[in-house]
Amino acid sequence: MTKIRMGMVGGGPGAFIGPVHRIAAELDGQIALVAGAFSSDAERARAAGAQYRIDPARAYPDLNAMLEVEAARSDGIDFLSIVTPNHLHLPAALAALNSGLPVMSDKPATATLDEALDLRRIVRETGTPYALTYTYSGYPLVREARARIAAGGIGKVRKVVVEYPQGWLAGEASGKQAEWRVDPARSGQGGCIGDIGVHAFHLAEFVTGLTVTELLADLAAVVPGRALDDDCTVLLRFDTGARGVLMASQISVGERNGLRIRVYGEHGGIDWRQESPNALTLHHGDGRTEIIQAGDAALGPDARAATRTPGGHPEGYLEAFANLYRDFARMLRGEPAPLLPGIDDGVRSMAFIATAVDASARRAGWTPLIIPGE
Amino acid sequence: MTKIRMGMVGGGPGAFIGPVHRIAAELDGQIALVAGAFSSDAERARAAGAQYRIDPARAYPDLNAMLEVEAARSDGIDFLSIVTPNHLHLPAALAALNSGLPVMSDKPATATLDEALDLRRIVRETGTPYALTYTYSGYPLVREARARIAAGGIGKVRKVVVEYPQGWLAGEASGKQAEWRVDPARSGQGGCIGDIGVHAFHLAEFVTGLTVTELLADLAAVVPGRALDDDCTVLLRFDTGARGVLMASQISVGERNGLRIRVYGEHGGIDWRQESPNALTLHHGDGRTEIIQAGDAALGPDARAATRTPGGHPEGYLEAFANLYRDFARMLRGEPAPLLPGIDDGVRSMAFIATAVDASARRAGWTPLIIPGE
Amino acid sequence: MTKIRMGMVGGGPGAFIGPVHRIAAELDGQIALVAGAFSSDAERARAAGAQYRIDPARAYPDLNAMLEVEAARSDGIDFLSIVTPNHLHLPAALAALNSGLPVMSDKPATATLDEALDLRRIVRETGTPYALTYTYSGYPLVREARARIAAGGIGKVRKVVVEYPQGWLAGEASGKQAEWRVDPARSGQGGCIGDIGVHAFHLAEFVTGLTVTELLADLAAVVPGRALDDDCTVLLRFDTGARGVLMASQISVGERNGLRIRVYGEHGGIDWRQESPNALTLHHGDGRTEIIQAGDAALGPDARAATRTPGGHPEGYLEAFANLYRDFARMLRGEPAPLLPGIDDGVRSMAFIATAVDASARRAGWTPLIIPGE
Amino acid sequence: MTKIRMGMVGGGPGAFIGPVHRIAAELDGQIALVAGAFSSDAERARAAGAQYRIDPARAYPDLNAMLEVEAARSDGIDFLSIVTPNHLHLPAALAALNSGLPVMSDKPATATLDEALDLRRIVRETGTPYALTYTYSGYPLVREARARIAAGGIGKVRKVVVEYPQGWLAGEASGKQAEWRVDPARSGQGGCIGDIGVHAFHLAEFVTGLTVTELLADLAAVVPGRALDDDCTVLLRFDTGARGVLMASQISVGERNGLRIRVYGEHGGIDWRQESPNALTLHHGDGRTEIIQAGDAALGPDARAATRTPGGHPEGYLEAFANLYRDFARMLRGEPAPLLPGIDDGVRSMAFIATAVDASARRAGWTPLIIPGE
Repeated sequence: MTKIRMGMVGGGPGAFIGPVHRIAAELDGQIALVAGAFSSDAERARAAGAQYRIDPARAYPDLNAMLEVEAARSDGIDFLSIVTPNHLHLPAALAALNSGLPVMSDKPATATLDEALDLRRIVRETGTPYALTYTYSGYPLVREARARIAAGGIGKVRKVVVEYPQGWLAGEASGKQAEWRVDPARSGQGGCIGDIGVHAFHLAEFVTGLTVTELLADLAAVVPGRALDDDCTVLLRFDTGARGVLMASQISVGERNGLRIRVYGEHGGIDWRQESPNALTLHHGDGRTEIIQAGDAALGPDARAATRTPGGHPEGYLEAFANLYRDFARMLRGEPAPLLPGIDDGVRSMAFIATAVDASARRAGWTPLIIPGE
Repeated sequence: MTKIRMGMVGGGPGAFIGPVHRIAAELDGQIALVAGAFSSDAERARAAGAQYRIDPARAYPDLNAMLEVEAARSDGIDFLSIVTPNHLHLPAALAALNSGLPVMSDKPATATLDEALDLRRIVRETGTPYALTYTYSGYPLVREARARIAAGGIGKVRKVVVEYPQGWLAGEASGKQAEWRVDPARSGQGGCIGDIGVHAFHLAEFVTGLTVTELLADLAAVVPGRALDDDCTVLLRFDTGARGVLMASQISVGERNGLRIRVYGEHGGIDWRQESPNALTLHHGDGRTEIIQAGDAALGPDARAATRTPGGHPEGYLEAFANLYRDFARMLRGEPAPLLPGIDDGVRSMAFIATAVDASARRAGWTPLIIPGE
Repeated sequence: MTKIRMGMVGGGPGAFIGPVHRIAAELDGQIALVAGAFSSDAERARAAGAQYRIDPARAYPDLNAMLEVEAARSDGIDFLSIVTPNHLHLPAALAALNSGLPVMSDKPATATLDEALDLRRIVRETGTPYALTYTYSGYPLVREARARIAAGGIGKVRKVVVEYPQGWLAGEASGKQAEWRVDPARSGQGGCIGDIGVHAFHLAEFVTGLTVTELLADLAAVVPGRALDDDCTVLLRFDTGARGVLMASQISVGERNGLRIRVYGEHGGIDWRQESPNALTLHHGDGRTEIIQAGDAALGPDARAATRTPGGHPEGYLEAFANLYRDFARMLRGEPAPLLPGIDDGVRSMAFIATAVDASARRAGWTPLIIPGE
Repeated sequence: MTKIRMGMVGGGPGAFIGPVHRIAAELDGQIALVAGAFSSDAERARAAGAQYRIDPARAYPDLNAMLEVEAARSDGIDFLSIVTPNHLHLPAALAALNSGLPVMSDKPATATLDEALDLRRIVRETGTPYALTYTYSGYPLVREARARIAAGGIGKVRKVVVEYPQGWLAGEASGKQAEWRVDPARSGQGGCIGDIGVHAFHLAEFVTGLTVTELLADLAAVVPGRALDDDCTVLLRFDTGARGVLMASQISVGERNGLRIRVYGEHGGIDWRQESPNALTLHHGDGRTEIIQAGDAALGPDARAATRTPGGHPEGYLEAFANLYRDFARMLRGEPAPLLPGIDDGVRSMAFIATAVDASARRAGWTPLIIPGE
């Protein structure tokens, strides 16, 4: 039972999401980060390697070097974790997949829908495992919500409200994290909608089990001079006719990371907030309001499997993230990991961004969400 | 300092809003209910009069009788409170105003926009005081929010999210309260949007001090067989270009009366929830989150004037309602009551309903909100 | 069905609790304030009468004058409401009761235990109705909690935690409300324990249906120079052996009126907070946490009867207060009002204060709570 | 920059706290679990080793074997993590310390006060690093609270309320976790007070920077037939005269892990709840209530250093635990780790348990908390 060996591309000094992937991957003791192409700058790559405490020889100056050298080692990496800015997702994924190396990619899958379609083709052709970290689907109570809705707990879904307010881009976008997000060259065609709107989109489909088929998008760059959207409202229609409202914003001053989803069915409802992730509110048809918490006896197997501590010991974002890596480890061992987002989720998300951005620009009204090739 | 004498039309046995108006009107000891045309059924009118403990001789079988007899008394009523179903608002208001009697009307002003325009004409011609109970504008912390925004506390408003979820019409509409609300003949052309959407609309304009100039409406009758909308999403544009989302729903199972408004400006934000009305969350531009409560020293004069008890002694819906009646009493005494909703708010609301219902039916996309005659 | 006529003693200009009693008494339209001895200063008495909008002839300079004159009127007062500082409660109550006039008294019953025993004797001898406004027992969900516990909903009670933190006396005690509370001559022997500790004590017995038989008190005057306690912890034992902790404080900076009670039984628990009074948390033995709210279908008859509006329309302190007056009106009509606090609650509370103050001063350890004459 | 190598004693199959220590130790990539004496049963030791994915040769059948073999390896363990039941803490710690191996021990330090004094002697004599996982002191906002109080943010501390309700032992104590906790032979002389009361005790001293000098304890075994306390109330006096109330309970049905601390000073207060650990409520002397959250710009260096993700990305129990291990790694590197609990905290806690258990049994009233040898 040796550990699965992970290589990372991206995640150099100053990065936020690289260390998060490292923690999440290693949290359950099944995976170890052993190599990385953390930066194209050799000095920074070395420094990052030291910080991650890996063998200095395995802190590579670039991805291709890493893939080549690691492939030749008997203890070479078992998969690649991609944590670069969006525009580098595709080449990194292709390089790995084409050499037979599984990929765990930060979201979004790629910078554009066309790229995502390319990627989907390669994933399908190679049959190499590929997964995407739509982190919020890793929370135990999100999985509980999904399971309860799938089991008919609220009846047929009628209405979804998913919102994701943040405030950190309400002013000037400064700092490493902010700058690339407001730059179309590095972020892709979506700003707020690509950065966090897709999380909300994925969560809405994940929790309800439904598919968005039509949307009406109203995106804006509220902060003067901004090239990409920073505030979005998208009305949704699902395949069953259910109605939805998706709101994402990065100019909502004071909001930190306020992802929240409410789903109402014929005879029940659920309410979950990312900032208080260990509780799920259930509205029952007889008027009772119930709060279930991580660790409760009433939880189903998906939620229980996604929890490491007893009730009342809060778990959070890193543990949710780790649940995706645990699922990915299962996938690498050939076990089922049905909740883990994959390339189809990636393509759907990119189609969502592309359709919303385009429809909003044209003030197009209701617009079908079409997934090319489906 | 005798009390102002109130007559009521509507509010017979089984009514919810009649007793609420009675309590609210009398709460501050300035107004007394002394007469009523509570029901067109003489027996029920008498029973209601007894319940309200008024002189049996002043429980009239109909409004015109009341107006005539009371006008002849030296201690006759000083104003009329209208609490009938919507389709009776206009004739009652006209009868009173045309006889020089001030009117305090339950919202909406009338059943249709055309009626509201008629009413506006009469209000203007007669110059008789007329006010509308958009109750939620009476809450102390709503008035505090308005005052802070007006004073520049959050900078220029960029984004408004106002939502009003309820769940009580998720199933069959039964009972006196439900039945007339789903019946176009008694409710008017709006269902949910007319019943509660207008509260959200009024609150958004009231708190921000802005004016909606354009909207995009998506209304639906979700419960099978329903003739009027029971779930609404309306995108808003304000006169300054600020963006808004208004959601109102009566099929959100488990929600009781979840009116909430969030306003985000250039450098601050506010968040208020009707079900916890004594707290207001302030997001400051420097990242601080502050909770202010009714009774706090930091409150401005509008909020202080609207509170009767020290901090920590919760006040609620009836007290908010009473604040409108207290304002109305000021108006009758010739004092300023600038926060009290009047006929122009009534007309705007009816235009909002009419425009939203029509635009949604036509799937019209962005549609100007035009107030006839302005 | 004419209204019950109320006279008030106390409640002059600047008073907080006088207007609260007026609002509460009149809220349900069954009682009207018609006379008062609001102040011993004739000018102030007149001014208060004008503010209350009563007939100037019925704003009396003193209580005895009021009792005499009103007794001679055919429309004289039906009962006396006592809202003076504590040391005047007894003489006012005796004057009324001895003339056959029912009494509704603000708490505590009297300034000392001996006075309370005198009062009990007179109440018993005269048989005249007497009630006490332990306001918090009027909240609908407090009554729901009591009913559920009485019905065995949490099993045998094991543990009670009742706390009542305030912060308004953390600094210098200034202003009309503060000054008499820190003055033994006007407040009695208890400071914080007499002002708010008794509310917590009454609530604990009211909700559980149990009787405190032993206590261990730790009272202190934390603010330098203060003559009366301003921070109290009292350990409780109930007649069944159940354990309790009572905390009351007026030096807890930032706390407004944080009364809260938690009761744990063999297989369930309840949690109620005065500042969010419309929700009650239920812990079920199978691990489920349920939130019930005023207006819910699951509420029992006591809670339903104590609510005036549908779910989601918050009621608060004034409405809870009004529930006591409604009960009192029932009592005056000869109907049962089993939840209304009376003289025995008053005596118990005074014994609680006296025992706690004395035991704490002596550092006495566990001390029986003995009710003289029982 | 190789990793620090950890050996573990205890933590075999079915254990809760062993895996928690493993995750916490490894979370920041500075420490690796490489060896363990997980169970005295050889088969179970092997199974645990496989689960932890360590080299099978380093899953030892007992602690002494591990210490001996590891000492002879060039890559032997750098410290010992003790996660056994309480009665085994002392022998394990002595064995390690006497062989010069630093120790990170789960709390409490030992099973009895005498043992703790022995341990203190050895720690002092050997000078070998020793630390204790009073986990809750690792939360960022607990450290923020401490820093603010130390800096005078609330003035001189007057009152502390620390509570720790749980409900999981309200019924029959069954299961591995419950059984040893109610058994004096394995748990020591304290039940609830030793299991969780000490956390509350440590937190109170940690956050305030004060020292408890006197206590009044009221402990009980509420569940029939239980040999150890399961519900405790302890009144506290601090060295400055500040007052405190400590409540710990394991029979509070429905409570999960409700540790909460409130501290009130002359002109401010703080409020923190473990189940919502990423927020800290600040009561300011001017009446403002502020909520600060992990990630806020207003946080001081201790809190910032204890956070891994931006605001709004919840961290929890495992991350707090990891903060202690990160401090411990600093200590091993010879860097200052002033917030890390050590043997003196361990001795104080054991004295607290012993004094409280004894004083409660004797119904002793106020009792000095004396630390032998100080």
